Amino acid sequence: MKIFNQIESEVQSYARSFPRIFNRAKGEWMWDEDGNQYLDFLAGAGTLNYGHNNPLFKQALLDYIEQDGITHGLDMHTRAKGEFLQTFNDKILRPRNMEYMVQFTGPTGTNAVEAAMKIARNVTGQQNIVTFTNGFHGVSLGALAATGNSHHRDASGVSLNGTHRMPYDGYLGDNIDTTEYLDKVLADSSSGINSPAAVIVETVQGEGGINAASIEWLRNLQTVCRKHKILLIVDDIQAGCGRTGDYFSFEEAGIEPDIITLSKSLGGYGLPFAVVLMKPELDQWKPGEHNGTFRGNNLAFVTAKAALDHYWSDNAFSEEVKRKGRYISQRLENIVQQYGDGNFTTKGRGMFQGINCVNGELAGKITRAAFQKGLIIETSGADDQIVKFLCPLVISEANLEKGIDIVEEAIREVCAKTDSIPEEKVYFEVA
Amino acid sequence: MKIFNQIESEVQSYARSFPRIFNRAKGEWMWDEDGNQYLDFLAGAGTLNYGHNNPLFKQALLDYIEQDGITHGLDMHTRAKGEFLQTFNDKILRPRNMEYMVQFTGPTGTNAVEAAMKIARNVTGQQNIVTFTNGFHGVSLGALAATGNSHHRDASGVSLNGTHRMPYDGYLGDNIDTTEYLDKVLADSSSGINSPAAVIVETVQGEGGINAASIEWLRNLQTVCRKHKILLIVDDIQAGCGRTGDYFSFEEAGIEPDIITLSKSLGGYGLPFAVVLMKPELDQWKPGEHNGTFRGNNLAFVTAKAALDHYWSDNAFSEEVKRKGRYISQRLENIVQQYGDGNFTTKGRGMFQGINCVNGELAGKITRAAFQKGLIIETSGADDQIVKFLCPLVISEANLEKGIDIVEEAIREVCAKTDSIPEEKVYFEVA
Amino acid sequence: MKIFNQIESEVQSYARSFPRIFNRAKGEWMWDEDGNQYLDFLAGAGTLNYGHNNPLFKQALLDYIEQDGITHGLDMHTRAKGEFLQTFNDKILRPRNMEYMVQFTGPTGTNAVEAAMKIARNVTGQQNIVTFTNGFHGVSLGALAATGNSHHRDASGVSLNGTHRMPYDGYLGDNIDTTEYLDKVLADSSSGINSPAAVIVETVQGEGGINAASIEWLRNLQTVCRKHKILLIVDDIQAGCGRTGDYFSFEEAGIEPDIITLSKSLGGYGLPFAVVLMKPELDQWKPGEHNGTFRGNNLAFVTAKAALDHYWSDNAFSEEVKRKGRYISQRLENIVQQYGDGNFTTKGRGMFQGINCVNGELAGKITRAAFQKGLIIETSGADDQIVKFLCPLVISEANLEKGIDIVEEAIREVCAKTDSIPEEKVYFEVA
Amino acid sequence: MKIFNQIESEVQSYARSFPRIFNRAKGEWMWDEDGNQYLDFLAGAGTLNYGHNNPLFKQALLDYIEQDGITHGLDMHTRAKGEFLQTFNDKILRPRNMEYMVQFTGPTGTNAVEAAMKIARNVTGQQNIVTFTNGFHGVSLGALAATGNSHHRDASGVSLNGTHRMPYDGYLGDNIDTTEYLDKVLADSSSGINSPAAVIVETVQGEGGINAASIEWLRNLQTVCRKHKILLIVDDIQAGCGRTGDYFSFEEAGIEPDIITLSKSLGGYGLPFAVVLMKPELDQWKPGEHNGTFRGNNLAFVTAKAALDHYWSDNAFSEEVKRKGRYISQRLENIVQQYGDGNFTTKGRGMFQGINCVNGELAGKITRAAFQKGLIIETSGADDQIVKFLCPLVISEANLEKGIDIVEEAIREVCAKTDSIPEEKVYFEVA
Repeated sequence: MKIFNQIESEVQSYARSFPRIFNRAKGEWMWDEDGNQYLDFLAGAGTLNYGHNNPLFKQALLDYIEQDGITHGLDMHTRAKGEFLQTFNDKILRPRNMEYMVQFTGPTGTNAVEAAMKIARNVTGQQNIVTFTNGFHGVSLGALAATGNSHHRDASGVSLNGTHRMPYDGYLGDNIDTTEYLDKVLADSSSGINSPAAVIVETVQGEGGINAASIEWLRNLQTVCRKHKILLIVDDIQAGCGRTGDYFSFEEAGIEPDIITLSKSLGGYGLPFAVVLMKPELDQWKPGEHNGTFRGNNLAFVTAKAALDHYWSDNAFSEEVKRKGRYISQRLENIVQQYGDGNFTTKGRGMFQGINCVNGELAGKITRAAFQKGLIIETSGADDQIVKFLCPLVISEANLEKGIDIVEEAIREVCAKTDSIPEEKVYFEVA
Repeated sequence: MKIFNQIESEVQSYARSFPRIFNRAKGEWMWDEDGNQYLDFLAGAGTLNYGHNNPLFKQALLDYIEQDGITHGLDMHTRAKGEFLQTFNDKILRPRNMEYMVQFTGPTGTNAVEAAMKIARNVTGQQNIVTFTNGFHGVSLGALAATGNSHHRDASGVSLNGTHRMPYDGYLGDNIDTTEYLDKVLADSSSGINSPAAVIVETVQGEGGINAASIEWLRNLQTVCRKHKILLIVDDIQAGCGRTGDYFSFEEAGIEPDIITLSKSLGGYGLPFAVVLMKPELDQWKPGEHNGTFRGNNLAFVTAKAALDHYWSDNAFSEEVKRKGRYISQRLENIVQQYGDGNFTTKGRGMFQGINCVNGELAGKITRAAFQKGLIIETSGADDQIVKFLCPLVISEANLEKGIDIVEEAIREVCAKTDSIPEEKVYFEVA
Repeated sequence: MKIFNQIESEVQSYARSFPRIFNRAKGEWMWDEDGNQYLDFLAGAGTLNYGHNNPLFKQALLDYIEQDGITHGLDMHTRAKGEFLQTFNDKILRPRNMEYMVQFTGPTGTNAVEAAMKIARNVTGQQNIVTFTNGFHGVSLGALAATGNSHHRDASGVSLNGTHRMPYDGYLGDNIDTTEYLDKVLADSSSGINSPAAVIVETVQGEGGINAASIEWLRNLQTVCRKHKILLIVDDIQAGCGRTGDYFSFEEAGIEPDIITLSKSLGGYGLPFAVVLMKPELDQWKPGEHNGTFRGNNLAFVTAKAALDHYWSDNAFSEEVKRKGRYISQRLENIVQQYGDGNFTTKGRGMFQGINCVNGELAGKITRAAFQKGLIIETSGADDQIVKFLCPLVISEANLEKGIDIVEEAIREVCAKTDSIPEEKVYFEVA
Repeated sequence: MKIFNQIESEVQSYARSFPRIFNRAKGEWMWDEDGNQYLDFLAGAGTLNYGHNNPLFKQALLDYIEQDGITHGLDMHTRAKGEFLQTFNDKILRPRNMEYMVQFTGPTGTNAVEAAMKIARNVTGQQNIVTFTNGFHGVSLGALAATGNSHHRDASGVSLNGTHRMPYDGYLGDNIDTTEYLDKVLADSSSGINSPAAVIVETVQGEGGINAASIEWLRNLQTVCRKHKILLIVDDIQAGCGRTGDYFSFEEAGIEPDIITLSKSLGGYGLPFAVVLMKPELDQWKPGEHNGTFRGNNLAFVTAKAALDHYWSDNAFSEEVKRKGRYISQRLENIVQQYGDGNFTTKGRGMFQGINCVNGELAGKITRAAFQKGLIIETSGADDQIVKFLCPLVISEANLEKGIDIVEEAIREVCAKTDSIPEEKVYFEVA
């Protein structure tokens, strides 16, 4: 550990929660240098939907490197890029009747968000972008203006402008549809909210606390955007790529965003990769206007294509994720009824769920206890009060059950049990 | 090509200059799908200092993947990261008596610049950062405020704030030391330039036109920074990693930047990777304040370590680069004397050189003619008027000569020859 | 009129509604060059609470000029300034147990708002200032960021930053206390609303549509501010100086703003004048930090003192205004019951009232018809849909009745009468 | 003095330099409550070009008030406004072949600057405005972004954006024409200076240290502006209204600004008043876009008209000012040769001159000593190092001589005399 203490910056974060030196990983498992094994319910914060070093893609990656395929080609056409585009079109876009242009941005989510915000502003000629309470979109300055978290915002050292913050679904209470407030300020020439270029929204706010917008709210949001001629950007970096069951998290709502950002699990193997999808009429970029040395990571093209081929050629994987999601829902429901004096609640959708443990202290005790039992799991939310279940989508049923068991044990140790409700074993649905 | 036209965004740029589908590369060579071979004098815009798919690192990369080493581990400690840090410390920092903390930012240059600007602002409590005419530091909004190019700036769609632009070395003419102007405005409480947190500078401006600051100017710049207690950030993303002969481009000047950004060739193999180096007392980050999914690319750790081991364990490689740099200087000097009616000039330092062809139209004709002859070479500068020689540092002498020969031929076809000066063959120094 | 058309800028506004050349005024009356007489229910947009050229102050002004009292003395001490300060302290501050420092800003309301926002930001070290939908605080860039009207905001030509907009009382419907939303975002570290320096609020929004916040809401707003340690700025420029019955519009709510802005009727005679009042501990200005050539208008000191002496030495005037306010309420209630098919509503408080005529077209027809009948009256609100009753507070009962009669006639001509309700004569209360 | 200490804000500035209570003034004289008489070489910081309470205008003002002329009429047409416009057109604009529209802004200089910057941005669609080192344009946020002084800028509490600072004439040394630098950055698409809407400049920087741009530089500045199609705004608030000898300070340069701001002495009697003059094609304001309660101060219309009639109907006054200006030049030249060991220099033009006393401490000693001798005189410049001679233009020759004598005495007391040069009496030119 010496070298880390000696010269790695204080900015490190996850290394503090899981102070081990990891050296091998496969599927839902990680191993440290001492040979200890950990079940991974963090999954690269949503980057490892297909697990660590997925064996289905590994050989394709090794072959490509072996054959001296292009590793770095700036944004030049390469065979790997062409095959990725073709596969993405064939397996994802066309089956969903989605017509979008694909922009390869710098290979980070925040860079995709920067590009999405730029193109929205350029096409509309408006500066303002509506963002939501508890949203998280990255920490480079453009994206950071859209991010709600003050821990990250305060680090900017400058004022963050060009956005207006509105309350997310449920923020003003259950009975208030906050899209009505949005509609009102947009219709009111004296509201003080400048005409926006776009709205940027996560369908499920991951870092913000696994807040899942209702399907109805998402539809209303699109209606308000259409009414006022403002673009709808769905930041699907964490919720997309199958996390909620469908490839895109907004499919259930039947909405058609004007712009979509993808990253994290897009590359399939955990390699840096990000894209912006935009309706063809929005693709008004001039050559190289948004550029960057690593846009289009060819190794990621290879694994991304393999992931699409293996998991998205039919809807079997999607059904599996939804089934696992329902299992998680049932387990978490059981847990919140058993523990926390009735104060705990479940949150989220699909395999993107969490337990609100009321405060960060409690949630932290739970995740630390779970780590002692061999489970890597993290918290999220403004006060880190949500225990976040974010395991690989490809996890085995046994290990999914095992991971949740560990959390339940951890909760049992940390929290008082609510007396009245008897626990009942939850079984998986028959696939 | 159909899929590219169909769904890849109009933002693509290099693909327009070199309209081929590439599928293999090695060292200084690239091949397209039709089997055509190209000599690469673009080298990933400085990312491929060690050539494409360097065979010295390739096996290490294959082995790591084969053994299921951690591919994605957020910012957790991994063996690969530890070995990279140790090697970077042993081979780069300690031999130069440099004491710096290493921050793994998102794996793009622009993200490193964002982090560098943030920490400078946070530590000093000042917002303003002094930037220079023709500087290029990336296109996410924070970095874009430091970038000079209006093509990229205008795409932001919002105002770019928090920076003040000063004239780079030579901008006001040869006899004016622009650091004196900087000194004056900083000393003048009524100058209208807010007290800056930092100055951010490239020692050689790549995208800005291969403008190399003089060693004297760099020293004076540091002196002015020290005098006024402002931090000196050297953005060594393009000029660093050996491009000018030394590992860091500022070594010749003997200055000690407070903060350094590295990316591009840092990873060795063309994989996305970026770091910020900062003096220990500046490492005042709170955990996770600047975060991102792909910070710390483990595959790049492996190849980066291999690159350091192979090329930077002694100064042989550095000497080789300097020798090649002198050869390039002589050849380019010869060329500008022969062609362009005395209007052409050479620019740059080490293996980071160019020919100013006065206008972009002429320079474009030359690079297009060179491409017809099998050479990939690009232009830079405000008007794309500079033909930019940016070949892999590991290029063979024969291919370096060949590449320059091709440019010379291209120039001969495009430009009038200046009559008086007889051409003379330039030989490599004996190594 | 020729010279106006020839060289006065197109920016002129009221001159378009009332296209006459006025040359004399007294009390609630104005006369044009042709000798036509107009009853003034606009009153300098709240500047002429004491009527035009109030004879009670006129002689004091003439004497001062006659004796060569200081007219312009920058911010030097003058006898006139000293006497104003003493009187303001004796007649306004001390009787209300208010301890405030008085800053003489540039003699415009917008300048006072700029100063108030500056000192709030400087003292707290925070940039953000919470503003409200439909607020109006002036059009210089700092104040304009707090103003809601897009007509004025869009004219800025730059982005307006440093403020966050929240819904004013009633904006989200009658049952929602919007201070709870403010409380929530301030308590939520991930809300995306930066910690504010201050809240700036009008107790009755004049330009925004005569929206009167409830007394309860104002108290809750102060409670939320105190809880989160943010300053409360009441912009009392239009609602203050007796307009709502008390000298300060917030007296009824019993709140104690940290900072108060006053202008408009402060000078008494319509002369440019503005001040910022701030709690002593906030008076952390350095000498001349906020300066300006005309801060402290000596002629206005003379008339302002006279106004305080004549109208605010006891509570008789206050009672008179409240009585007239009740009369206006009753009349306007009657009118909205008679006309507009039940769609009209009354708005406001004290002698700061209006009728919401649903749309601007209708309201404009009414005010134009009234002007034909010799009444100067204007509209306000986002769509100019409010007919705004803003007569001098000193108006005679007969003329107040007459003015309202004219509006009623105008409405009768323009609007369908609601059939069922019989009109009944409203009498003044016996004083 | 008690009330001032008790409740006037700490922001007061001139009251600190001249701690008296003034109660009467006439021409170049002021008297305090104790009957002491002071010669005024500050003249309201340029507001009292025609002296205090000029008897030539006083009766017009008294008559207007006596007859109940409109005092406050918002921006409605009044006879007083019409007569001012006619006179301004007849006496100022037409004789100089100047065709401009007149906008009555809020009656402060800073408000006129805000309006000028807005209209320039709106007409051009560009945000950036080029400003100069040591410029002073006011302290409301829009104008403050153009002001150089950090004392005032730092008080903003927010970042000041939308401007780019360039070096004023002489800032880079005597041999460098800084308009060439401006030309270069505007021609360079990679300079990092956004295309500006306008340049805003003072021909003589008053607060910045009585820096007079050369006539040649002003012409070159206009040439650069025309070449790059950017608007030229001359802020003539302090230098205009005759201060340099001509009505406008730029007349000698023969340039034709697109936009001109005037205030300070425009009203003639020291009353708040400000206008923006703009070329007719720039008058693209929508009604009321830039508004304000006190735009168009009717009392100031009356005195402004009288000032134009009395002083600007022929060129006698202009010649008188120039003659006095030459006298001042000679006297100050003599003084800097006599004192300060050769380190003192003269600055300025016309009756807008100063002595650079090298540092603020020395200059402050001199002005304090002068005040002891009955002279009110102030310093300016970044370090308050300039003793600023700003007496009324109408001062008698005897009193001008007397005032300079007092400064000379003060300097004699404070500074070492340079031995070699014999003093010689300077006489006025025969008028």
